[in-house]
Amino acid sequence: MKSIDLNCDMGESFGPWVMGDDQTLLRFVSSANLACGFHAGDPMTMRATVRDALALGVAIGAHPGLPDLQGFGRRAMTMTPDEVYALMVYQIGALSGFAQASGSRLRHVKTHGALYQMIVREAALAQAIAAAVRDVDPSLLLIVSTPNLAQAAADAGLRVVHEVYADRTYQPDGTLTPRSQPNAMIVDVERSIDQVRHMVHEGSVIALDGTRVPVRADSVCIHGDQPGAASFAQRVRAGLEADGITICAP
Amino acid sequence: MKSIDLNCDMGESFGPWVMGDDQTLLRFVSSANLACGFHAGDPMTMRATVRDALALGVAIGAHPGLPDLQGFGRRAMTMTPDEVYALMVYQIGALSGFAQASGSRLRHVKTHGALYQMIVREAALAQAIAAAVRDVDPSLLLIVSTPNLAQAAADAGLRVVHEVYADRTYQPDGTLTPRSQPNAMIVDVERSIDQVRHMVHEGSVIALDGTRVPVRADSVCIHGDQPGAASFAQRVRAGLEADGITICAP
Amino acid sequence: MKSIDLNCDMGESFGPWVMGDDQTLLRFVSSANLACGFHAGDPMTMRATVRDALALGVAIGAHPGLPDLQGFGRRAMTMTPDEVYALMVYQIGALSGFAQASGSRLRHVKTHGALYQMIVREAALAQAIAAAVRDVDPSLLLIVSTPNLAQAAADAGLRVVHEVYADRTYQPDGTLTPRSQPNAMIVDVERSIDQVRHMVHEGSVIALDGTRVPVRADSVCIHGDQPGAASFAQRVRAGLEADGITICAP
Amino acid sequence: MKSIDLNCDMGESFGPWVMGDDQTLLRFVSSANLACGFHAGDPMTMRATVRDALALGVAIGAHPGLPDLQGFGRRAMTMTPDEVYALMVYQIGALSGFAQASGSRLRHVKTHGALYQMIVREAALAQAIAAAVRDVDPSLLLIVSTPNLAQAAADAGLRVVHEVYADRTYQPDGTLTPRSQPNAMIVDVERSIDQVRHMVHEGSVIALDGTRVPVRADSVCIHGDQPGAASFAQRVRAGLEADGITICAP
Repeated sequence: MKSIDLNCDMGESFGPWVMGDDQTLLRFVSSANLACGFHAGDPMTMRATVRDALALGVAIGAHPGLPDLQGFGRRAMTMTPDEVYALMVYQIGALSGFAQASGSRLRHVKTHGALYQMIVREAALAQAIAAAVRDVDPSLLLIVSTPNLAQAAADAGLRVVHEVYADRTYQPDGTLTPRSQPNAMIVDVERSIDQVRHMVHEGSVIALDGTRVPVRADSVCIHGDQPGAASFAQRVRAGLEADGITICAP
Repeated sequence: MKSIDLNCDMGESFGPWVMGDDQTLLRFVSSANLACGFHAGDPMTMRATVRDALALGVAIGAHPGLPDLQGFGRRAMTMTPDEVYALMVYQIGALSGFAQASGSRLRHVKTHGALYQMIVREAALAQAIAAAVRDVDPSLLLIVSTPNLAQAAADAGLRVVHEVYADRTYQPDGTLTPRSQPNAMIVDVERSIDQVRHMVHEGSVIALDGTRVPVRADSVCIHGDQPGAASFAQRVRAGLEADGITICAP
Repeated sequence: MKSIDLNCDMGESFGPWVMGDDQTLLRFVSSANLACGFHAGDPMTMRATVRDALALGVAIGAHPGLPDLQGFGRRAMTMTPDEVYALMVYQIGALSGFAQASGSRLRHVKTHGALYQMIVREAALAQAIAAAVRDVDPSLLLIVSTPNLAQAAADAGLRVVHEVYADRTYQPDGTLTPRSQPNAMIVDVERSIDQVRHMVHEGSVIALDGTRVPVRADSVCIHGDQPGAASFAQRVRAGLEADGITICAP
Repeated sequence: MKSIDLNCDMGESFGPWVMGDDQTLLRFVSSANLACGFHAGDPMTMRATVRDALALGVAIGAHPGLPDLQGFGRRAMTMTPDEVYALMVYQIGALSGFAQASGSRLRHVKTHGALYQMIVREAALAQAIAAAVRDVDPSLLLIVSTPNLAQAAADAGLRVVHEVYADRTYQPDGTLTPRSQPNAMIVDVERSIDQVRHMVHEGSVIALDGTRVPVRADSVCIHGDQPGAASFAQRVRAGLEADGITICAP
């Protein structure tokens, strides 16, 4: 029986400002990555989103970001590994508080925005991320989509969840086609579903040039902030389930 | 064998700004109440203070405050019980992350500043505090010095630590003499030590009018932000130990 | 020729979070009260809203609030008059920067949310507000809807703009019917327009009990955050203009 | 009659946290660069520092920084020119509010920390800085110590103040010796004074290799956050005055 996880960033409202249609998306995904207060997600939002996710059987994970509300954690900041370690521990801990208060626990961690970009470039930051996750709770899964974070996680003894994209095309080397290029996005939903189906059944993806590239597909990233996000998630889920693939958290 | 706890607020630096001489105070107290990022205490400070406290065998606890760095959590804010609950869970969780990352755990919680004043006046807020502590970890001790928080804690099934003051005088009804009044403070260190000694041995305090008032003294609050704080803590500790009283966390 | 101002809070987006349909509302109002970064409104939002308002000939004013993004400035905070003075000067100054950078200047000030409630109760805070406005620029108009702020403004030598409501009913003493009571809101747009028309032409409002109450109506507050806000503003403007009343900033 | 300016960063306290001995330093410098709330400096601190500076006849200027209290504006952030422009206008405006409220006005602007480093590397950011200063008030002086900011300021029609260092050594190309190298700092106060004296009288500095390098010295940067800062400032001032050089704002 084949299975795959659908993960989506959530809980990114802040105070009076609402972002995303979490209630609807929670019906279609199996893992929710929750903002932890630094780039989005105040305590009230975190509490509500944890409850909503658990009520629908969706696995909850931390989605820590940079301390930059205004920039939504999307502006890279020059940081030391110690600073990255500390902000990871803080945010994972904060969200864990809500999980515990709801009688549950976190299942995974996925870093947000520019923090993710920063660790792609600097191995020491990737190691700090992995160390933080391990030190808080070594049973947490780390969602990764780049080699150096996967390596750092493995070195730290963490189990990793390899993330793939339904709506992005791939290059022959297994990387995503940069958004700056044409054909970076897959607009057609059926093609998106086909790409995931292929990944699950064949363990590979067809790159833009036709090359077959091996991929490990543990979880599909669903973008919640795009128009039609819920409808897309619903169709991807239905399409995969129709193909006999179970949608479940890792 | 009589014993008592000495607790002190710590980790109240933020970014480049240093507050208090935590390193020295940690040598004399048995419990450290650590700021959790809302009124003071950034992640780097929290990490360092947790490590320093644990290295010296000092019990660590959360010291959550209002989300008001500029006002240091000392400006009361109109909040709902749900908002207070959420900010407590968030901050206890965040500090717990650092405790776990250091292979340890939190022992207690003590609310900070205006948050403490707010719950004195509103029972529903006191109940929200107690519920938050219990929901995150029912084994956490709650340090209390007012009846309605003690009651809320008891109702929530929490164990409480009754806090007393070495450097404040008491009224016949067991409350502290307001700071606005003369004689509110005990300036003489020997008199401070005597007051605590009396509390420990006799279970009572001599109020300003000479009345003997029963008190439960589990922990003495040491103010770390006053000039001479470390010296005061050292002398109180030495004075109590000389009297055969053990200084230890509850 | 009768005239009245229509004012509306705007620029209350923050970073990635959008609030309100400012672009549409700007077509119908004559004065825009812009958030200044404390309860809402980051620098990018302020810059864009200033430009948009000026492009449409809408007068711009500062809408300073409490330093509480999470609570959107709606949670009262215990503050000294000096603290209120300082946060007013800071925010008026910040918005003035954008006005100057666009070759324009601020015309008015209107306090936001709980800050407004706080000054209703405490005359010293009302005086601090008025002093701050006067000290930064004595030609700024202060929008008021309560006696003690009007008094403080007059004492400070400021010109005031008396604000009235199209969609709220009045009591015989000239105060608004509290929202907690039935009939507090006027749902019917035609009745709203009639109320304003009556205020402009007669200088009075018909209270809920039928009493005619004198009011000074300089500006009508348009709530931008309600569903149908733009449509309401459009109809109020059209209704008043059809009655020969000019809509213009004071 | 030769003259030079002594400038120093000030007003970098925040809420309960004190930084620097501004009161003492104000007695020795002629220009104060005041933090504007993003990297340091809350409204109460800004108000007090403006007043203190004006009372001592010290020229006040804005010292805008990145929105990063925790990192004290010392962590570079990836920003667009529009974002930099907006944060400059906001902060200059905010401080201007306090200047106006004290019946005075700002004289200059000097960017802080990583914001300064960012503009060194990216000409578009330097242009955004210059445009923001010009757009708010073209009579403001811009303190510069790097060629591309000087160029951007000149292109924007701003008058610039060229900053030199008393306690840093220079390279043959006129740049500062990087702190990572030995001999980067001039520890001896007399040598520091000699260096400035030479700059003022000869219009040049002797680089580490003995080369005479032309420099334009309008203002000497005094570091206020180092131990002995006030004493250093006092001695530099006295040394220069003894040499017949007037200390005054540009």
